[in-house]
Amino acid sequence: MTLDLSQVEAALQELRAVAEAMPPVAAMGFRIDHYDGLTLDMHAPLDANVNDKGTAFGGSMTSLMTFSGWSLVMLQLRLAGAQADVFVADSEVRYRSPVIAELRAQAWLAPEQSWGTFLATLAERGRARIQMQAHVLNTEGTPAATLSGRYVAIAKR
Amino acid sequence: MTLDLSQVEAALQELRAVAEAMPPVAAMGFRIDHYDGLTLDMHAPLDANVNDKGTAFGGSMTSLMTFSGWSLVMLQLRLAGAQADVFVADSEVRYRSPVIAELRAQAWLAPEQSWGTFLATLAERGRARIQMQAHVLNTEGTPAATLSGRYVAIAKR
Repeated sequence: MTLDLSQVEAALQELRAVAEAMPPVAAMGFRIDHYDGLTLDMHAPLDANVNDKGTAFGGSMTSLMTFSGWSLVMLQLRLAGAQADVFVADSEVRYRSPVIAELRAQAWLAPEQSWGTFLATLAERGRARIQMQAHVLNTEGTPAATLSGRYVAIAKR
Repeated sequence: MTLDLSQVEAALQELRAVAEAMPPVAAMGFRIDHYDGLTLDMHAPLDANVNDKGTAFGGSMTSLMTFSGWSLVMLQLRLAGAQADVFVADSEVRYRSPVIAELRAQAWLAPEQSWGTFLATLAERGRARIQMQAHVLNTEGTPAATLSGRYVAIAKR
């Protein structure tokens, strides 16, 4: 797949505006950075997401990972010109180590999933599911928390 | 187990102060309501937790459930006079229906878990795990989202 970078940047800008209009996302300072065709990168400041131990709040980490998966599904829909609402359906999260600095998250398509199949199913049935993966990295660049989550898109009529 | 209500209220007050000092918890307006000996009740306003569809943000729901389980573990430690840090280790979340009003959450001990065993293990080994369950209720009082999560307590030296 060839990536039209100006189209990606325009879709990211629209998505940033949607994100900024969501109060919890704005309050926790979630920021959508870039998309390289495979991985969506996001970050959030530690100070807005810190817990009682001076590390990243588990709720903020799971929220950021859930949101990063959602954002990548939304981005793909926009790039395909599809109009749909996207809901998270389920998730599994493992917390491995504390995060003591800025929260850096990445989301990508789970193995054996296909954007083509997802978009074709959505166009055909008005509804489609897709499995995503995400993580939050610690300062060493290794995963501090991982998420596997399923999302449902429902076409807007 | 007899519940000393004044002791519970004092522990809840301490916990509310810890919660209020956590920026993401304060920003999302998570409030600890009461504990009846089995279930810890919490709530959060919809307006601070709303998504692009006018319903509760999935990230806020998972964050609120994660926090409610954490809070109940913290509460039990305080009631037992134990000093420990509590970390979420993993969680599984199912989202069933949208929440269109105030987020009301409850957390309780998972089946076949025991506070007595947890506290004894913590005292003996300085570390213990416990499985919790939580949900967010919709306006009909049925679960809109459910969480099963494992928490680790590490004794403070």
